[in-house]
Amino acid sequence: MGLTMTGKPWQEIRDAKKAEQAARIPPEWKLKQNPPEETRDLRPYAYKSGILSDRELEITDLDATSLIERIANGSYTVVEVVTAYCKRAALAQQLANCLTEIAFAEAIERAKVLDDHYRTTGKVVGPLHGVPMSFKECFNIKGYDSSNAYISKCFNPAQYDAYLVEIVKKAGAVPIAKTNIPQTMLVAESDNNVFGSSKNPVVAHLSCGGSSGGEGVLMAYHGSAIGIGTDVGGSIRIPAACNGVYGYKPSFGLLPMLKYANSTHLGLNTGIPAVCGPLARSVRDLELLTRVVRDARPWLEDPAVMPHVFEQGAVDRKPVVGVIYQADTLTPHPPIRRALRETAAKLEGAGLQVKEFEPASYAAINEVTRQLFTLDGLSYAKRELAQSGEPPVPAVRTIGFWDLPSKTSEENWSWNAKKQALQKEMLEKWRAAGIDIVLCPAGAHTAPRPGQWSNDSYTVTWNAMDYPAIIMPITHVDPAKDPKDTLEKPLSATDDEFYGRYDPELMAGSPVALQLVGSRLGDEQLLKDAELIDKILKQQHGSS
Amino acid sequence: MGLTMTGKPWQEIRDAKKAEQAARIPPEWKLKQNPPEETRDLRPYAYKSGILSDRELEITDLDATSLIERIANGSYTVVEVVTAYCKRAALAQQLANCLTEIAFAEAIERAKVLDDHYRTTGKVVGPLHGVPMSFKECFNIKGYDSSNAYISKCFNPAQYDAYLVEIVKKAGAVPIAKTNIPQTMLVAESDNNVFGSSKNPVVAHLSCGGSSGGEGVLMAYHGSAIGIGTDVGGSIRIPAACNGVYGYKPSFGLLPMLKYANSTHLGLNTGIPAVCGPLARSVRDLELLTRVVRDARPWLEDPAVMPHVFEQGAVDRKPVVGVIYQADTLTPHPPIRRALRETAAKLEGAGLQVKEFEPASYAAINEVTRQLFTLDGLSYAKRELAQSGEPPVPAVRTIGFWDLPSKTSEENWSWNAKKQALQKEMLEKWRAAGIDIVLCPAGAHTAPRPGQWSNDSYTVTWNAMDYPAIIMPITHVDPAKDPKDTLEKPLSATDDEFYGRYDPELMAGSPVALQLVGSRLGDEQLLKDAELIDKILKQQHGSS
Repeated sequence: MGLTMTGKPWQEIRDAKKAEQAARIPPEWKLKQNPPEETRDLRPYAYKSGILSDRELEITDLDATSLIERIANGSYTVVEVVTAYCKRAALAQQLANCLTEIAFAEAIERAKVLDDHYRTTGKVVGPLHGVPMSFKECFNIKGYDSSNAYISKCFNPAQYDAYLVEIVKKAGAVPIAKTNIPQTMLVAESDNNVFGSSKNPVVAHLSCGGSSGGEGVLMAYHGSAIGIGTDVGGSIRIPAACNGVYGYKPSFGLLPMLKYANSTHLGLNTGIPAVCGPLARSVRDLELLTRVVRDARPWLEDPAVMPHVFEQGAVDRKPVVGVIYQADTLTPHPPIRRALRETAAKLEGAGLQVKEFEPASYAAINEVTRQLFTLDGLSYAKRELAQSGEPPVPAVRTIGFWDLPSKTSEENWSWNAKKQALQKEMLEKWRAAGIDIVLCPAGAHTAPRPGQWSNDSYTVTWNAMDYPAIIMPITHVDPAKDPKDTLEKPLSATDDEFYGRYDPELMAGSPVALQLVGSRLGDEQLLKDAELIDKILKQQHGSS
Repeated sequence: MGLTMTGKPWQEIRDAKKAEQAARIPPEWKLKQNPPEETRDLRPYAYKSGILSDRELEITDLDATSLIERIANGSYTVVEVVTAYCKRAALAQQLANCLTEIAFAEAIERAKVLDDHYRTTGKVVGPLHGVPMSFKECFNIKGYDSSNAYISKCFNPAQYDAYLVEIVKKAGAVPIAKTNIPQTMLVAESDNNVFGSSKNPVVAHLSCGGSSGGEGVLMAYHGSAIGIGTDVGGSIRIPAACNGVYGYKPSFGLLPMLKYANSTHLGLNTGIPAVCGPLARSVRDLELLTRVVRDARPWLEDPAVMPHVFEQGAVDRKPVVGVIYQADTLTPHPPIRRALRETAAKLEGAGLQVKEFEPASYAAINEVTRQLFTLDGLSYAKRELAQSGEPPVPAVRTIGFWDLPSKTSEENWSWNAKKQALQKEMLEKWRAAGIDIVLCPAGAHTAPRPGQWSNDSYTVTWNAMDYPAIIMPITHVDPAKDPKDTLEKPLSATDDEFYGRYDPELMAGSPVALQLVGSRLGDEQLLKDAELIDKILKQQHGSS
C-alpha cells in the first residue's frame, strides 16, 4: 500500500492490485497447474487439486446452519472451518477470479480468538460463531480497499467496517474476502479494469451474472458459507440464478447499509431502493442471516432501517401461488419454461393452489427504471473513470443506458409518478388474483454468454415495486428435455433475438433458477413460504 | 359550476368561488351582524349568535370519542350531530373564513342514511358512525373542487374521493367541509387569492398558522370533530399550536395519501416525506382516527403504506422524557419557556424521569429542508400562478425560499446525504441520552402576527428525521406570568428580531402548545405516552 495514482497509467494500478491479491494467497494453496482452457465445470477442481482434505471438503459442503451446529457442539474448530473455506475460496479465485480483497490471514487469526473463547468459556460468542462470510466489494472492511472496482479508488483502505459487517462480526462471523463486481455496479456482469472478469464455475464459458457476481461464483464454489450482496435491479438475484445458489433481496428498510462504501447512492435518491441481502446455499441460511441482523435492532443505529417489519412472526400456511409464465418483455427460454411447469405441478401435487398471474407491464416498469437509474446521466461513474483514464469495459459500453441524459427534478418526479402508478396497478392485480406469493423466472434465460444479460426486467420489476424476492435453484439445462425451438409469435425483435440465443449444447448443465416474490414487507412470511416450497421440491426432486 | 378560465380575469374566478361558498350556507345559519372589527376572541359567538341550541352547543363541545359513544347508545341522532357541527362550522366560516369547499347539504343527507341504518339494524355502520369530519383542501371529495387554492384549478370538481376519505366514510364518518390553506401550501399561513385569509378564532388579530390552517381554526371553533391535515414542515402542527388543539404528524407510511389532490408531490420526491394526519380535541381522538384507518389495512390499496408498523401494541410505561428547551435557531418566547418548565415539573412530579436533551442542529436541518423543498425551483407553484395571472400572496413572496434555484440530481443527492448524516447524528444523540420521547416547543413563539411564522425549524426538524410528533395545548399567554424581556445573548440577528416580536398584550390569551416527539415508527407508543402525559397535565392543571 502507499501507492498513489499521481501521473501513473491506470494499468500500473491494476497490476499492483493483482499482485497484492496474489500475495494474499499462501503458496501452498496455489494450484500446481491450471485446468485446460476449455474446461466446462470448474467445481471438481476443489476435489482434484489435493489442496483441501476430505474433512475440509466435508466442512465446505455444509450450509451455514449445519456448520454452526457442529462448531457449537465441538465437532469442528473455527480454525479448521475458516481454513477450509479460505482454501476453497483461494481455489475459486484462481479458477474463476471471483474475489477483490482477500482477508484469509486475518480471518484465521480471528478464528483462533473464537476458538480460545469457546475453549475458555464453553460458549459461542454469538449465533454466527465461526461462520466464514464474504461481502460484495462495496462493503467496507477496515484495513482493506473499498475501490468499488474503480482504478481511481484503489489503495485507499477503509477506516471502518460497514455496520452490517460489524453486526455479523459481533455475532461471531468471520469475514474472509470481498467479491468481484462489474465496473459501475450497474450491469449484470462482473468485469472491471481492476480485478478483471469473473467466471461462472458451473459452466465456465457462460456469464456469472452481476453485479454481486463474485458472490454468486464464490457461493457456488462453496468458498463462503454466507455472502452479502446488494440489489437495485437484480444484482443479488441474477448471480444467484446464474451460479445456482440461493439469494434474497429484502424489502427496503430491513437490513442496514450504513457505512457501506457507496453511501451517497442509496437508491432512495432515485425512487428505486437499493438493498443488501444474503446469498447462501439454503433457504434457512437466508433466514438465519436476516434474523441475526434484525435481532441486533439495527434501527437503533441506521436511520434508514425500520423497526417492527420483521418481528411479526410468520404463519404456517400453504400459500396460494401465482405463476408468471411469461412477461411482456422477453419469452423465457425452454429450460425456464420447463422449470415453471414442473415446479407448478409439484406444488399442486403437494396441495398448494397454483394459478396463472398476469403482472403489471414489465416493459413499462423497465423503462421507468432505465430513466430513474440515469437521473444524473451516470455522472458519478463517468467521473470516476475519467479520473484514472480507464476506459469503460464492454458490458458498460453496451449497457443500454450509458448515454441517457440527466433529468430535471420535474422529470424525476414524473418518472416516479409513473412508477407509483405501476406499483398501484401491481397491487391491484395481486389482490384481484387472490394470491399470496408469486413464482416467476429470474430472467428470460439462464446464464448467457458473458455480457449478454442486458435486460433485467424479470428482476428489476420487484425492485421498482419494493417487493421481497428469493432465488431458488430448481434444475439444470438438459438438452434432452429442453430442445431448441423458435418463437411462433415473438413479442418484439428483441424478444426474437434473445430467444434465438438459446443453445442447448452451449448451456447444458447451466443452473435453472426461479424467483419467489412476496408482498411488500412480507419478508418474514416469504422466507417461511420459500422453506416450505424448497422442501416440497427437494422431496420430489431428490437432490437435484 | 361550468365556468372556465378562458380569457377571464382571475378576480372573476375568485368572486364566483366566494359566491358559491356563501350560497352553500343556509340563510338561517347566517350571522345577523358581524362582530366588531376589533373583536379579539371569536369563539363566544358560537353561543351569542343564537344559531345553535344549547343541545347543539353541548354536542359540539364533546370530543369524537364521546360523540361516538352517545350516538351508538342512542342519545343523539347523526342528523342532530351533523347539523350541530355544520352550524358551528358555518359560524366559523363567517367569523374566521376557514373553509374552502362546503358540503353541509350532502352531509345532512348522509346523516339521514346513517340514522336509517341504525334505526333499521340497531347497529352502527362502523367505528366512526356519525362523526362529522373535515379535510384539508388537498383531499379529493367527489363532486367538490380540489383547487388547492389555485385560481387555475377552480371549477373542476374531483371525480373521486381520496382513499382516506373513502376509508373514514365506510367507517361511518360524515365529511362536512374542506378547509383553507395558503397559496402553494408551502408557508405556515392560510391566505390565498381564491378563498382569502383565515383568522385565528382565539385571538383574531394573530396568525392561524398553516398550511392546514383552516383545519386548526375549525377544530378550535368546534366546527368539526376530527380533521385531516398534511405536514411536510409543520403544516399540521403549527396550526394545531396556533389555535390550541391537538395535532399528530405520523411517521411516513402509516396513513394513506392515495388519490389525494397533490399526488405528484408526495414528498418522497425530495427526501422530506409529506404525511397526512389528524387534528382533534383530545389525544384519544388522534389515536382513534389512526386506529380506524390502520384497521382498514390501507397497505392493501396504497403501495406507499406499510404493514406491521402500527400493529405492535404499545406498553404501559413512564417514558424517560428529553426536553429541548432551546434550539440553535431561535430562542423560545417567555410563554413557551414557562410551558416547558411547568410541564417538566409536573411530569417529574408524576414520577417521570425528565432530562435536558440537546438535539442535532436545527439550523443545519433547516437549511437542508429549504434546499430540498426547492429542488424544482418551485416551478410547479409558479406555473399554476402564471396560468391564471394571480399574484403570489404576501406570505409566499416573503417565503425565504421563493427564489432559490432548482437543483441538479447530484445536488439533490448531496443535500439528501447531508440529511442522512443529520438523521444519524440525531439517532445517536437520542440513544446516548437514554430517552424514550422528546418534549419540545412547537415553535419559538406562539401565534405571531399574520405572515410572521416564517421559520419552521422547530417542526420541520421532525419531518426531516421522519419521527412522529404530537402537538398538545398546554396553557395560554398570560402577561402577568410571561413578562417581556430581552435576550442577553441572541443566537443571531434573526433570533434577536424574532424574540423582539414577543408582545404580552398583543398575544395575551394565545394558546401555548408543546410538541411530543417519538422515535421513528414509534407512533403507537408515542400516542400512548401522550395520553399519559396529557392526563398528568390535566389532573394538575384543572381544565386549562
